[in-house]
Amino acid sequence: MNIGFVGLGIMGRPMASNLIEAGYVLRIYSRTAETCRGLAALGASLCDSPASVAAESDVFISMLPDTSDVESVLFGSKGAAKELLPGAVVIDMSTISPSATMGFAEKLSAGGIDMLDAPVSGGESGAKQRTLSIMVGGKREVFERCLPILRAMGKNIVHTGPNGAGQKTKLVNQVVGALNLLATVEGIRLARASGLDLPNTLNAVASGAASSWMWANLGPKMIAGDFAPGFSIKLQQKDLRLVQDSLQELGLAAPATSLIYQLFTRAVEMGLGEEGNQALYKLW
Amino acid sequence: MNIGFVGLGIMGRPMASNLIEAGYVLRIYSRTAETCRGLAALGASLCDSPASVAAESDVFISMLPDTSDVESVLFGSKGAAKELLPGAVVIDMSTISPSATMGFAEKLSAGGIDMLDAPVSGGESGAKQRTLSIMVGGKREVFERCLPILRAMGKNIVHTGPNGAGQKTKLVNQVVGALNLLATVEGIRLARASGLDLPNTLNAVASGAASSWMWANLGPKMIAGDFAPGFSIKLQQKDLRLVQDSLQELGLAAPATSLIYQLFTRAVEMGLGEEGNQALYKLW
Repeated sequence: MNIGFVGLGIMGRPMASNLIEAGYVLRIYSRTAETCRGLAALGASLCDSPASVAAESDVFISMLPDTSDVESVLFGSKGAAKELLPGAVVIDMSTISPSATMGFAEKLSAGGIDMLDAPVSGGESGAKQRTLSIMVGGKREVFERCLPILRAMGKNIVHTGPNGAGQKTKLVNQVVGALNLLATVEGIRLARASGLDLPNTLNAVASGAASSWMWANLGPKMIAGDFAPGFSIKLQQKDLRLVQDSLQELGLAAPATSLIYQLFTRAVEMGLGEEGNQALYKLW
Repeated sequence: MNIGFVGLGIMGRPMASNLIEAGYVLRIYSRTAETCRGLAALGASLCDSPASVAAESDVFISMLPDTSDVESVLFGSKGAAKELLPGAVVIDMSTISPSATMGFAEKLSAGGIDMLDAPVSGGESGAKQRTLSIMVGGKREVFERCLPILRAMGKNIVHTGPNGAGQKTKLVNQVVGALNLLATVEGIRLARASGLDLPNTLNAVASGAASSWMWANLGPKMIAGDFAPGFSIKLQQKDLRLVQDSLQELGLAAPATSLIYQLFTRAVEMGLGEEGNQALYKLW
């Protein structure tokens, strides 16, 4: 089976590499030839556009920063859609707008092409270790057909509903994660201002009703002043912007979610975009 | 060793019962005689005031709702302080003001009485199963002397610093827990409004970077419409009021913590005070 892969950033590169390791034949494209070199050495074929990737692919995977990037890779002048044959499957693993995703799926379906939205959670380390959580929207039958491919990249793989449901679930995940991160930031700020021993506090709070992945994993980094990105402020802010769009479409009030969007936007404003999301701690 | 125990509510009763089971001789007092009956049947001696409990106690434990309750039980006209002998220890396991706690400890120390502030986390089930987390402030030597008593009531027992440090750590715990709860509420509201399958969403989000005790334990209750209290809205609001006092004393900005205090206060206003803290979900 031939797989096309477009979007070879921090996440896309290790994911593509895991596919090659699992025995898939890969055709790839990137605007910066540089990023393709390692994968080419592993046997991936370099193409000069998304369309040329698509021309010989049974499955076309995209892993891109934002909605507009996916739109142009699929439907732009050198986009994949015009070259994919009926029966092909597009798997978009980017985190983008759920409503745009539903539109893309409908457009592709007119040409006999199926789509899965399959955004991931777990960051660079999850991509490298094949432990990504993958939330998948689309037809169950297509999901099951593509499961071996997804299993080459992740672990907790859940079919969450029809097209768009993967993205919707990812946005829920991002709301909860970002607010747990804010809980960690305000908790550690209070502990520090109260004069508490910080490692001791991390330990005392870690095992009860206040425990979270964010507290356990990013709390120690905040205390140590380690702001290297596992997941960046910039991308977290982008995800929360998608959430704001959804809240507006749904007419839903969510005061804490609105607050955290403001705070991440302020962090980007302050030039912290490339730092890890735990750099939210630097806001004050 | 004789132990006095005042404050036999939902938490205090199982804690006192665990002390009796561990072999301690207990003297107890409650304003409502009714609540003492079960413990008296187990062998506890009923007294008619905190002072009379204290008269023959080496260690005096209080487990009360708020700062003013602890103040009157210790220093009121029939309070414990006047009857405790030099060398006795007061262990206050209530969640109350850290700065008031420091004042109480100083006042007791003038009479040769040591104090530990030892608030707990884990709710009624933790109290029953002896799995409470206990955050302890006070002299390390006193902490170590009282450790066997604390071990009869809890599991993760951490000495967090001098008098007041137990309460300060507990407030950090309450900030983080309450905000993780709000994250769960807004996440589930978004999932429901998006038309997602809710048990599926709980499962997809539970294992990644957004995971938390609140999501795993109170998320399913919100979905099931189970608002029975493990920990009540009213007490959570009281704890967050103590946090607000500390933030003001420290001159510390904490926008999400302020928001969650407003929301819990609104929940009390709406008459939800006696329900479980997951009833925050009913606010909208």
